[in-house]
Amino acid sequence: ILPMKLGSMVKNSERLLPLPEDCSTQESFRIEYDTFGELKVPSDKYYGAQTVRSTMNFKIGGVSERMPVQVIRAFGILKRAAAEVNQDYGLDPKIANAIVKAADEVAQGKLNDHFPLVVWQTGSGTQTNMNVNEVISNRAIEIMGGKLGSKIPVHPNDHVNKSQSSNDTFPTAMHIAAAQEVNEVLLPGLKKLQNALEAKSKEFSQIIKIGRTHTQDAVPLTLGQEFSGYVQQIKYGVARIESTMPRVYQLAAGGTAVGTGLNTRIGFAEKVAAKVAELTGLPFVTAPNKFEALAAHDALVELSGAMNTVACSLMKIANDIRFLGSGPRSGLGELILPENEPGSSIMPGKVNPTQCEAVTMVAAQVMGNHVAVTVGGSNGHFELNVFKPMMIKNVLNSARLLGDVCVSFTDNCVVGIQANTDRINKLMSESLMLVTALNPHIVAITETKERILREFVYLLSLFDL
Amino acid sequence: ILPMKLGSMVKNSERLLPLPEDCSTQESFRIEYDTFGELKVPSDKYYGAQTVRSTMNFKIGGVSERMPVQVIRAFGILKRAAAEVNQDYGLDPKIANAIVKAADEVAQGKLNDHFPLVVWQTGSGTQTNMNVNEVISNRAIEIMGGKLGSKIPVHPNDHVNKSQSSNDTFPTAMHIAAAQEVNEVLLPGLKKLQNALEAKSKEFSQIIKIGRTHTQDAVPLTLGQEFSGYVQQIKYGVARIESTMPRVYQLAAGGTAVGTGLNTRIGFAEKVAAKVAELTGLPFVTAPNKFEALAAHDALVELSGAMNTVACSLMKIANDIRFLGSGPRSGLGELILPENEPGSSIMPGKVNPTQCEAVTMVAAQVMGNHVAVTVGGSNGHFELNVFKPMMIKNVLNSARLLGDVCVSFTDNCVVGIQANTDRINKLMSESLMLVTALNPHIVAITETKERILREFVYLLSLFDL
Amino acid sequence: ILPMKLGSMVKNSERLLPLPEDCSTQESFRIEYDTFGELKVPSDKYYGAQTVRSTMNFKIGGVSERMPVQVIRAFGILKRAAAEVNQDYGLDPKIANAIVKAADEVAQGKLNDHFPLVVWQTGSGTQTNMNVNEVISNRAIEIMGGKLGSKIPVHPNDHVNKSQSSNDTFPTAMHIAAAQEVNEVLLPGLKKLQNALEAKSKEFSQIIKIGRTHTQDAVPLTLGQEFSGYVQQIKYGVARIESTMPRVYQLAAGGTAVGTGLNTRIGFAEKVAAKVAELTGLPFVTAPNKFEALAAHDALVELSGAMNTVACSLMKIANDIRFLGSGPRSGLGELILPENEPGSSIMPGKVNPTQCEAVTMVAAQVMGNHVAVTVGGSNGHFELNVFKPMMIKNVLNSARLLGDVCVSFTDNCVVGIQANTDRINKLMSESLMLVTALNPHIVAITETKERILREFVYLLSLFDL
Amino acid sequence: ILPMKLGSMVKNSERLLPLPEDCSTQESFRIEYDTFGELKVPSDKYYGAQTVRSTMNFKIGGVSERMPVQVIRAFGILKRAAAEVNQDYGLDPKIANAIVKAADEVAQGKLNDHFPLVVWQTGSGTQTNMNVNEVISNRAIEIMGGKLGSKIPVHPNDHVNKSQSSNDTFPTAMHIAAAQEVNEVLLPGLKKLQNALEAKSKEFSQIIKIGRTHTQDAVPLTLGQEFSGYVQQIKYGVARIESTMPRVYQLAAGGTAVGTGLNTRIGFAEKVAAKVAELTGLPFVTAPNKFEALAAHDALVELSGAMNTVACSLMKIANDIRFLGSGPRSGLGELILPENEPGSSIMPGKVNPTQCEAVTMVAAQVMGNHVAVTVGGSNGHFELNVFKPMMIKNVLNSARLLGDVCVSFTDNCVVGIQANTDRINKLMSESLMLVTALNPHIVAITETKERILREFVYLLSLFDL
Repeated sequence: ILPMKLGSMVKNSERLLPLPEDCSTQESFRIEYDTFGELKVPSDKYYGAQTVRSTMNFKIGGVSERMPVQVIRAFGILKRAAAEVNQDYGLDPKIANAIVKAADEVAQGKLNDHFPLVVWQTGSGTQTNMNVNEVISNRAIEIMGGKLGSKIPVHPNDHVNKSQSSNDTFPTAMHIAAAQEVNEVLLPGLKKLQNALEAKSKEFSQIIKIGRTHTQDAVPLTLGQEFSGYVQQIKYGVARIESTMPRVYQLAAGGTAVGTGLNTRIGFAEKVAAKVAELTGLPFVTAPNKFEALAAHDALVELSGAMNTVACSLMKIANDIRFLGSGPRSGLGELILPENEPGSSIMPGKVNPTQCEAVTMVAAQVMGNHVAVTVGGSNGHFELNVFKPMMIKNVLNSARLLGDVCVSFTDNCVVGIQANTDRINKLMSESLMLVTALNPHIVAITETKERILREFVYLLSLFDL
Repeated sequence: ILPMKLGSMVKNSERLLPLPEDCSTQESFRIEYDTFGELKVPSDKYYGAQTVRSTMNFKIGGVSERMPVQVIRAFGILKRAAAEVNQDYGLDPKIANAIVKAADEVAQGKLNDHFPLVVWQTGSGTQTNMNVNEVISNRAIEIMGGKLGSKIPVHPNDHVNKSQSSNDTFPTAMHIAAAQEVNEVLLPGLKKLQNALEAKSKEFSQIIKIGRTHTQDAVPLTLGQEFSGYVQQIKYGVARIESTMPRVYQLAAGGTAVGTGLNTRIGFAEKVAAKVAELTGLPFVTAPNKFEALAAHDALVELSGAMNTVACSLMKIANDIRFLGSGPRSGLGELILPENEPGSSIMPGKVNPTQCEAVTMVAAQVMGNHVAVTVGGSNGHFELNVFKPMMIKNVLNSARLLGDVCVSFTDNCVVGIQANTDRINKLMSESLMLVTALNPHIVAITETKERILREFVYLLSLFDL
Repeated sequence: ILPMKLGSMVKNSERLLPLPEDCSTQESFRIEYDTFGELKVPSDKYYGAQTVRSTMNFKIGGVSERMPVQVIRAFGILKRAAAEVNQDYGLDPKIANAIVKAADEVAQGKLNDHFPLVVWQTGSGTQTNMNVNEVISNRAIEIMGGKLGSKIPVHPNDHVNKSQSSNDTFPTAMHIAAAQEVNEVLLPGLKKLQNALEAKSKEFSQIIKIGRTHTQDAVPLTLGQEFSGYVQQIKYGVARIESTMPRVYQLAAGGTAVGTGLNTRIGFAEKVAAKVAELTGLPFVTAPNKFEALAAHDALVELSGAMNTVACSLMKIANDIRFLGSGPRSGLGELILPENEPGSSIMPGKVNPTQCEAVTMVAAQVMGNHVAVTVGGSNGHFELNVFKPMMIKNVLNSARLLGDVCVSFTDNCVVGIQANTDRINKLMSESLMLVTALNPHIVAITETKERILREFVYLLSLFDL
Repeated sequence: ILPMKLGSMVKNSERLLPLPEDCSTQESFRIEYDTFGELKVPSDKYYGAQTVRSTMNFKIGGVSERMPVQVIRAFGILKRAAAEVNQDYGLDPKIANAIVKAADEVAQGKLNDHFPLVVWQTGSGTQTNMNVNEVISNRAIEIMGGKLGSKIPVHPNDHVNKSQSSNDTFPTAMHIAAAQEVNEVLLPGLKKLQNALEAKSKEFSQIIKIGRTHTQDAVPLTLGQEFSGYVQQIKYGVARIESTMPRVYQLAAGGTAVGTGLNTRIGFAEKVAAKVAELTGLPFVTAPNKFEALAAHDALVELSGAMNTVACSLMKIANDIRFLGSGPRSGLGELILPENEPGSSIMPGKVNPTQCEAVTMVAAQVMGNHVAVTVGGSNGHFELNVFKPMMIKNVLNSARLLGDVCVSFTDNCVVGIQANTDRINKLMSESLMLVTALNPHIVAITETKERILREFVYLLSLFDL
């Protein structure tokens, strides 16, 4: 045994999870300035003084707490759109073109390493907007052959941020990012799961099984009918998400500082929204009321609420499937779930419903994320809600986790579910509740003969007799 | 000073809040039977043995924890509808007529005293369904001249509950009650508030004031514009609620025990839904998938989520209004709120934004209710969710409180809000941020002259110059 | 069928749930005054003008939304304590004595009908404090032979509220009410359940059964061991609640309007706390920092958090018990739960785990209440948190429901649980997982003989061989 | 303008946030086996087949969703402790020594790159336990000169996992990680903030200011008193966290699969806990009831609840500080907050309370995390709660964010707060509420002269007269 103790090895100064980097402490640097003075900026990075300053002031969490890349990429789309519209209003085409090229690189995720800021910064996301402006400005300067940090010929504020404010760009990027995540990850995931459950519902349409209410034996139904309930839940989940999107497709761009659109041109808002719609293929429009779009983020609370409902559906379905698949000997055992991995380090041969577990953990997370979004959404003041980065982080996390887990659940569990028909039949035949199903026919002497016959035929059909 | 101490006066057996009554302990009673044996039923009540038994087994909370009367009244509507449809299928018209009359009395709230059960009973609401069956049966028996408790000529199960099961009636009553509360209380309340805010937005359309972002001074906007953001929030709140209603208008009736519709007639589900729609004037339809309608209550989670979003909106608006109305000397003081009551027992003359406080307390409650609904909605198992009474209690509470507080807030605060224009002007003229608004015109020498002029005109217009 | 339609019968003006009463509209009344003018006060009520005014301004919810009687009764205790201390400081003994008598009646719940105000009033609870002052004043006047409403010889503000402010009385009443509910309902309920589970754990100590992890078969344990986990959860639940109480036992009384104690006498705070401790038999002390005691209610958030943990424990235990008791034929069937009522209107003979359902519904409610308390607790501003009535309503509701449901669950379920040993043995003998338990002995050839022997003996002992 | 559209550039196959890596697709690999067959393992990684298989089955989230490194490092401590204890029971010292060395490297974070698994895996954390076993086994093999993947001479299950099960190791690592994060990050952060607020409270002890209740002007207090309330909140926050730790210090190790301790030696549990205590310097003990320790994670729900209370405190304090510091011209302006960065891209000169915003965003996140932990904690079944990875992720996130944000808030805001005494005095002198403070002296003619004098002296003292 080694003599040293770990207790002394992990010093107080060594945190288990390192803080996010302080970008002002790199060895190779250039000097840049903001209105507060000069700062050391890493030589190999496109960002500038304001980004570095934020890393000095907000040492919170770790690298996993960085602003989601989906927001950064949405900013790339927005900045390209704004540059194109600004060119229409007279911005030098050479500058506009360089901004477009640089913004495209941001939108494509090629410059992700240049966005070190964490979510836990100013609640308006201003510092991320400046991070984007700095990166695009410097990259555009580089494209045009200029010197990094010179702000010439492409100025981060005067050109990249032209006709914009953090207060309208950040919520615009929030909506773009949320809408893309919903369309690219969440809805495809849900639809894939819906289809897989629907196929199972059809496959199992002839299998009669005992129903369970209050977790107790009840009257029979088919396994296909049981799965049809899950299909309906997911189908409605898609409808729920979609019904919230009209308000997510509304963009704040053009509202500038408080929603009045000060410093923008007439038509700028509409043109930017149209351009973003064109670039993304999604039906974005300009928000009809910019004051609401800056001061509140009800649209994200609403979307989060729809995802919370989907989480409830998934929790229910995954719970059912793991209980119906419980066993192999001492559980309900009606379903046979795919074996995907060794189940236990101590019990060889044990197979666990691990995909269901991932689903239910995600569901719990989404419910928690929803409360965070709700608290943030309710605490805006006056002309600006300042819980923006936290809100979008949680919304994106929920959309991503739900979408991904639907795919994982479908591929690694649902498509491989088999009915254990021997077990199902055994439970059915044993159940005293079958008597119940027939009972009304015996006692209901006041009923018409027609009805008795109809139901009897129905029951016979259930058993394929 | 009295010698005795309160500590000894309140004995352990005397609880501060009495338990809900045990209905088996009344002095004047008749004997009734359920499958478990005989029970003493109070002579002056229409309910029977199963109701009494529930009061013995579930002594939880106090009388304020009773099943909401909206659910009871919704059951009245459902039972009338079922009786009418059952008559179409052959139920003796005399019995059907008596059930209809008794059910109408339930629907009109005339028999509320006959429903002593609390929410904290079986999670299927079975005992409330039986309470309804017993009350309607006995009242119908009375109408027909029979003897209470005899089950002749109107049997609670065979006639009042005919073609039904607790498993489909309770969720049906949940949806009827929720839809009525939304339409009669929540939406009218929201629309009233929306209209009042809209009127204020117009009234204040010419008042320029300092904007505030990050709670700090920002560029100007009009007070009307600020209120227009509130209007938009409430307007969208209405849209959010309405977008969830299609799924709330779907009724489970006809699914019976597990969703197969066993023991019902073909067409029963559709006819009952149509009858309920006719009786309520609301567009109810039969649920396309009864398995989902019994096993999950996602539709209520969804509705609760929309109300949660509305709660966020109201929290934001009420917070703004109380801060803008803070003072009279040492606050922001831009708004003058109506004085409705003496503000303090120690500080005569103090007037508090009490309506805003009621609004924000309701908002917090609705957020909490939403989590309760979410937890309940996610924990259904197999063919039946057994958090039904808890879920509907919270949904109805949220709808009621939101609707009522909107009316109270409108009548007692919003309509009486006055702009303190002297204060607003003083703050505006002092603010160094005004410089900011003009700043771009001075520095933006690369901008076209047209733009400068346009914005200058805009600024002048703000000040009516 | 009756020709009239219900749709037209329930007019818009007739709400399904009536609004709380407007006390200014009674037929028999006297005239009283507040600083806003004259008001009609019902002749048969002790409350006065300020109470009536509140009922006019806050028509929110229904009668079930009234201020919890526990708060009213706690006010009775506080007002008696304050009167006694005020007498020490010179208040006329005749007045003090009359206040003490009237306050005792409030504390004993004899005057509950005189407290019509709802929770959704001013967030400081000022109106309830005034309601209490008015009722005690008028009742004391009556005792002394004066005229109701005359404020002579006992003035609601100058005498009943002497040395107090709503801002310190309401939080004091909150803490008294919460501490009483915890001690009289919650802790006794938890301990009763703990004892019952402990008895079952001992009773089942020799019953070997299959364990289940991931809901799947795992290695064996005894049913007594399984129940011992539940015992531990509840035991720790008691410890959790108790560990939060030191901060709940701190009283704000003596802080008056903002915490400075303005208008009170030196020592008043300590004497009132001592008097309340004496009257209740609970270890109340004066809060060391009155600013915190008025501006924040972290102590209630903390207590609510402990109750939220207890809710998790109960949800887990009740879920286990209903699944272990599922069947009778097609479930796990290891436990036989008591039959308390008929289970279904359509399936005679069906018995459901209804007590478990009440437990889990309560658990969900407590989780929701906790979020409401959290949101309220986080939104205080400056010297006063104004979510007081909402917070205490939810805290009391959680304590009450948890305590009551523990008693109901114990009496109607836990004490009657029987082990289905035939079923348990059958599942055990079938389980292929038993092989797992023996497996290490076969493969672990590198292990010492002693260990193999020891574990073999252990396994044998499990089966009583 | 570039002709191409982004809409077409980001193909459906290119997700905005890449999925976590599938480790089976590396170019340079070795072949390893698990019971399911052979797999390609990257040549430069210590992990083995089961880790790779998990990356194939759980493509959920992105790299930011990896198991927190704190859990991995806690596993290093546990595995070292277990190896040392196993040596006591006969494990070959050479093997034990190699495991200890490798485990130390894990504990020190040197092998973080070898832990690619995400949180969203099996709910027992089994795959992470195997990941740890594989990495330590292979690294120990390397230390001893063996061949990676050969499992000789150090086997991942037989040696590294000896006397353990995922079911007891993962909860043990959860508690170690949580306790370390609380002690190293959360409590130091809270205490630092408490000290800074205490210093400010003293610094401001002579500054009289207007109090505010209901956000409205109230009677005066000192700024120091106002800050003393914040001090008390944080001080109690520390007490709240500490009061939950006794149950967090209890370790599940020794319970193995279901809590019976099957396959472990007598005394193993106690010795491992003692060793972990020695290595960490924290008072860990073995859990008295292992069934509870595996099946429920109430201790983490409780800790999360205490952090939720702290979040409420921080939200309140940060809200107060930003409102008191609002302005510079049109706000309350009583505090001058440090200027840390440029405030706006459009409004030069604007300085925002950005640290307060980070604090309140973190508070909202912690409230959300708490709900996720609550939902997970309430949904355990039978012998194993399977929401483990999700629960610990959220607990660690809350502890980390709260601790870090306290430090950031202290360093970048609290220590630099200045009182704007001119403004404070101006508001005080203007306030008509001062009259209130004096009012009782004028009207309370029934009071003794002594009292009037005492209070007058008090008021004079407030103004240093």
